[in-house]
Amino acid sequence: MPALIRDVSSIDFSDVPGTRGAQIKWLISPKDGAPNFAMRLIRIEAGGEIPEHSHPWEHEIFILKGSGRIRVNETVYEVSEGNAILVPPDVPHEYHADTEMLFLCLIPNSGVPPEYR
Amino acid sequence: MPALIRDVSSIDFSDVPGTRGAQIKWLISPKDGAPNFAMRLIRIEAGGEIPEHSHPWEHEIFILKGSGRIRVNETVYEVSEGNAILVPPDVPHEYHADTEMLFLCLIPNSGVPPEYR
Repeated sequence: MPALIRDVSSIDFSDVPGTRGAQIKWLISPKDGAPNFAMRLIRIEAGGEIPEHSHPWEHEIFILKGSGRIRVNETVYEVSEGNAILVPPDVPHEYHADTEMLFLCLIPNSGVPPEYR
Repeated sequence: MPALIRDVSSIDFSDVPGTRGAQIKWLISPKDGAPNFAMRLIRIEAGGEIPEHSHPWEHEIFILKGSGRIRVNETVYEVSEGNAILVPPDVPHEYHADTEMLFLCLIPNSGVPPEYR
């Protein structure tokens, strides 16, 4: 199997339904042969949000640009560029962007929707 | 379990033995409760390299800064800022930095050394 090299600029953002101003690019997924986990780039416009949701898989996040807040259960965390974040499985969480935020968000393949498998 | 928020600047780089000019920061690991995969930040100085090696787990990489080359089997890929890369399991691969390179490198927990478990 060859390596995959994919520039972020080669993929268009898709709107994330149910959010206000969030978009996603799938960078690496099981479709590409990723054996265990998937890499996505997420953009939230300034003032935008991904409302509370919960699922049985974790997020590993790295913030490339911007700042905002992540609420996990009842705790609100201020986050900004250069932060690595682990959102545990099975906890209600939501995201608010204060400035335009751009972050990598990785999930195990168990959380990948059918269209990227 | 609470979320983990860790700024890259809060961790020191450690030298990567057997390389020329490569250093690593572990950002998220099983020690932090990561259920499935680990996030590391790797720096290779300009002209530095991580020589050929191989292992039964994949890498998912995102290049934050710089440019260089990744050889996978017999193919050399030019890589630069904004590239997402999947290095498949069980293939010989090596890294060369042309300018100072900074990249995230994620691996499944099966590849995490004992000191980060």
